[in-house]
Order: sequence, then C-alpha cells, then structure tokens
Amino acid sequence: MIIDIHGHYTTAPKALEAWRNRQIAAIKSPSEMPSASELHIGDDELRESIEANQLRLMRERGLDLTVFSPRASFMAHHIGDFEVSSTWAAICNELCYRVSELFPDSFIPAAMLPQSPGVDVSTCIPELVKCVEQYGNVAINLNPDPSGGHWTSPPLSDRYWYPIYEKMVEYDVPAMIHVSTSCNACFHTTGAHYLNADTTAFMQCLTSDLFRDFPTLKFVIPHGGGAVPYHWGRFRGLAQELKKPLLKDHLLNNVFFDTCVYHQPGIDLLTRVIPVDNILFASEMIGAVRGIDPETGHYFDDTKRYVEAAHIEPDARYKIYEGNARRVYPRLDAALKAKGR
Amino acid sequence: MIIDIHGHYTTAPKALEAWRNRQIAAIKSPSEMPSASELHIGDDELRESIEANQLRLMRERGLDLTVFSPRASFMAHHIGDFEVSSTWAAICNELCYRVSELFPDSFIPAAMLPQSPGVDVSTCIPELVKCVEQYGNVAINLNPDPSGGHWTSPPLSDRYWYPIYEKMVEYDVPAMIHVSTSCNACFHTTGAHYLNADTTAFMQCLTSDLFRDFPTLKFVIPHGGGAVPYHWGRFRGLAQELKKPLLKDHLLNNVFFDTCVYHQPGIDLLTRVIPVDNILFASEMIGAVRGIDPETGHYFDDTKRYVEAAHIEPDARYKIYEGNARRVYPRLDAALKAKGR
Repeated sequence: MIIDIHGHYTTAPKALEAWRNRQIAAIKSPSEMPSASELHIGDDELRESIEANQLRLMRERGLDLTVFSPRASFMAHHIGDFEVSSTWAAICNELCYRVSELFPDSFIPAAMLPQSPGVDVSTCIPELVKCVEQYGNVAINLNPDPSGGHWTSPPLSDRYWYPIYEKMVEYDVPAMIHVSTSCNACFHTTGAHYLNADTTAFMQCLTSDLFRDFPTLKFVIPHGGGAVPYHWGRFRGLAQELKKPLLKDHLLNNVFFDTCVYHQPGIDLLTRVIPVDNILFASEMIGAVRGIDPETGHYFDDTKRYVEAAHIEPDARYKIYEGNARRVYPRLDAALKAKGR
Repeated sequence: MIIDIHGHYTTAPKALEAWRNRQIAAIKSPSEMPSASELHIGDDELRESIEANQLRLMRERGLDLTVFSPRASFMAHHIGDFEVSSTWAAICNELCYRVSELFPDSFIPAAMLPQSPGVDVSTCIPELVKCVEQYGNVAINLNPDPSGGHWTSPPLSDRYWYPIYEKMVEYDVPAMIHVSTSCNACFHTTGAHYLNADTTAFMQCLTSDLFRDFPTLKFVIPHGGGAVPYHWGRFRGLAQELKKPLLKDHLLNNVFFDTCVYHQPGIDLLTRVIPVDNILFASEMIGAVRGIDPETGHYFDDTKRYVEAAHIEPDARYKIYEGNARRVYPRLDAALKAKGR
C-alpha cells in the first residue's frame, strides 16, 4: 500500500475561490461579508474536481491513499482577522472532509487551522477538535509564520504554541509544518518561502528542548526537509556546537521528512542521509510543480519513480510508503485497520 | 593550486569587537561615539590571529589562497544608521586588506559594504571603489537583507540594487550574496538565515530577467547554494512553469555555488547536479561549524576531503579548485598572473 502523506486540495471548484475573493473584498466593507452558507458546491463538482486530477494521477502512479488537506498557499492566514481565518478554515476543512467521504478509500483529511498573526493559538483548538472528532482528520497543518513571510510569530519552541501541542499530543495527531503564500516580495511562495520555512522550523527545534517538554509530539517537515538533508553535516555540527545530543536522539524521534523532492539525486541524498524510519512518502500532487521534466519525460512530482529507483532495501521502501505513515499518523493507522486494511 | 573563495576574518583580535561594542553603545549616546582611529591593532596581532587559525588550517589541508572578507555575522547592517555601517565597514575592510598585505601569497581581500536598511545602495559605492582600487579587493559580499532577518529590502532583481551592479560590472568583480546575523528570533543565523538567504536569492534571480540587464554580472551563492541543488528538480520545474529558459541558459552563466557543504553526501549531490563550471571550492573556514565530525574524525568544514572523494574527473577538480575561481574572479586571476602564479 502506498500512502501519500502530503496532498492539497489545489483543484477545488472555482466557486471556492470566488467566495474567498468576496470574503477578502468584504474585509474593507463588512456589510458585504458573505456567509459560509452562500457557498454552494455540490458532490458532483467535488467528485469531478478529484477524479479528473488527484485521483486520476494516483491511479496512474499506483498510489492508494492521500492525506488530504486544504490548499496550502490559499490558507493565507495573514489576510483579515481571526474571524476571517476561522470561517475560511471551516469551509476548506469541510470540503476536504467531504472529499474523504466521497472517496473514503483514497483520501483521509488533515486540517488547516484558523491561525491569525498575533492571535492566541488556543483560538484554533475548536476547529482542531471538530476536525479530529467529527471529520476524522488524522493530522494538522501548522503554519509557523501566519504573517506570510514577515516571520512575526515566536519560534515553534516558544510556549506561545503549547496549547496546540497539548491538543496534538492528546489526540496523537502529527503536524505538518507548512507555511502559506508569501506576501513578502523577497520570497517566492513555492520556490523560497516553503523551503525556507522547512529549514527554519527544523533549526527552531534543534536549538530548543521542545521535545523534552513534549516527548510524543510529532512534526513532519515537508518538501524533503527544505535544506536540511543536503546540509545534514552542518546541522550535526551545529547541534554539537550547541552541546545538544546527536540529532538522532535530539530530534529524530519527533521530526520526520517527506519525499517532495522533484529529482532523483535529491531523493538519493535524502535516503542516504536521513534514517529510513524518518522518511514518509509524499508528492504534494497536484502542487507547485505540475510540468513534465524534459530530462526524464515524466512529471517532476511523480516522486514514486525516484523512491523506486533509490538504492534502498525493499523493507525500507515499505517503511517509506506505508509503515512510517502508520506509525507517525496513529489515527490513520486506526482508520485503515478499522477497514481491515 | 587550491583557492578557497569563502573565508571570513572570524578570528580578529578582541580589540575589534571591543571597539564595535563601544560603537553600538554610542548609538544611543552619540557623544561617546569612538572614532576609527581609536582602534589600534598591530601587525603582530594580525599575524598571530591568522597564523594560529586560518593559515594553520590552510597549511594542514593544503589550501593555497583564500578570498578573505570581514566576518559575515558581524557585518550586522541592521545596527545603527549608514554612518555606523560606513565606519564599521571601513575598519573591517582595512583589516582584511592588511591581512592580505601581511600574507600576500595566502589571502586576497573581498569587501563588505556599508549597507543600511532603506538607504540608497549608491552610498556603498565609495567604499567599493576604495576596496577595489586601493586595497585590491577581487569581490564584494552583498547582503540581500540588511535588516537582519526582516527582509525589508526589495528583491535583488529590483532596480534598487542596480547602482551596485553597474559598478560590479565596470570592475568585473563578483558578489557573494551573503546575509549577516539574524535579529529575528525565528531564524538561527548560521542554521537558518544563511541557508534561507541563499535559496531566496537564487529564486529572486530565477523569477526575474536580471541577467538580461547585466549579462556579465556574477553572483556566488554560498553554503552550497542553500537548498537549491537538493531541490534542483523543483527549480527546473518552477522555471518551466514561469516560462523561463532552461536554468543553464537562464542563470548558470551568472550564478555560481560554493562547496560549503559539510558532509560527503552533500558534496556528492552538488557535483552530481550542478555543472562543474558553476562550482567553486570554499570552506568558510573558520566559520559556523568548527567541530570535528564524530562520524569521520575530521573537521566538518574540511571540505577539501569531500571534493577529493567525490566521483568527478581530475579536470573537474581543477575547475572547482582553481579554474572557475580564476574565471569568476578576473581580478584574482590578474593578481595571480602578475605574480607568475
């Protein structure tokens, strides 16, 4: 079984974006604020948007199940206030839940949170509770920079974030640490901000003792861990300078990397450097890079091809495809087992 | 001959830091502002600080020449105003120049600029002119984020930066794109901010047509290019999405990567992915990672060991060690040739 732990609903029907545009426009003229009930997307539209896109590619590539969350770049937590984020998160999470109900064998949801810069993160708890308890979400996406490229929140090791961590630990759901769109002209969203956030989050963990406070907290660093595996020697050396334990003891019980690295040499490095127990299969399909690589004739984001070609043992491939996901996402494992999978 | 194109004067005599601390303290009480002439560092002190450190390690490792610039994390362009940065840059550049005069066979200087957030970059030109014309500097370090982690300057493709580029082109000196210390709690300086800046700068070049305006402008992206080589497929794919030419045509006549990657798998990826003409040997010694790798028993930053062990042709190794540096740093080549080297 092949589980893709990083898929976003990037192909939602246009009505969603139209509603969001009305919501954003209404921030300056509140009387025109649309209610969530004004958005109408039928099951057929949802089915079509999935069958023609993610599900088609999953079948072509032989992927069985995707952990499916709202479009990351559209979270845009920097827009409006908590109310705006809250309504938007509820809508997006409901859509992913509905997709998971329409295609229960192929999608299982992960939640975006109604974060808002400077707002107490405990305001996110009700949405998190609803998504886990009512929608069967198996993970959350946590944005370490809800300002969208201005990095005004405290580091992930700060107590500011602890209310979220306490709930994550209680439910045993991991967080993918995933920023949203950049509104800072310096950072291209998918080419710089995403990768920078991955590296930044890892280093925030490294310099802190966060996982001493939360021994069972689990973070998934997407996009192959940003710059981290490529600079693994640098990070091992920095940990040593900072008198931290070896990275395997200090972080690797809690921090995991996905395989969203879009060429063979990158996956080869990832699987050579990072212990196999810390690598989870993902493609972020359909996402930032949708084209076909002229050097291979295959989609850049067909990451299964790279994992297949990597010089690893069959058992390692099982862990990357399935075993690690079941361990890191216990609610995913439970949901599968409940269906005899 | 082995040229290390990325060395900083991280071991300057303590008097330098003491003077800087007085300068910083005086920002709030201007009557106590020290003058540059109050800093006294004798040639013997300079010699000692180099012989016991950089030069000792260069000899141990068989490195012949270092392109030597002021300590990057101490540039701290966010501190004070242009006057503060200007005095500080002049002092630091003079010290690197003096080191190059004391050890003319082993060090050749590269300049930091007196950047200051929000200030017109043409204010940096006089220091640049002095460093090239009087001090024989062969390159500059350009900070894409003089705010120190708040990223308030325009992208490197913006016309804001063009006065510097015009002078660089006139003199044919490359810029290493190198940030300084982070004053944003989110970013660890050497573990996140440096690598993020490398990735960010590359993506700023990718999304723009900067090198159409400046076909001979040259940027060196340090720290092995941040996350770029590891995600080379992602960047190739993003360029394709953005209807840009192939990266080799779009950027690789102008953008180069150093070898400051502190483990074998990283250098193996770099040399596998990036054309050999775009890789320049460097160690950033003595820098961020000073310890010995317990996995190898050798210094993390002894990057020559990794280049030696990489699966590349002897001719490729010559280019990485010497040939590319002579091409990318024409004034370095001229200075060497003037000495019959």
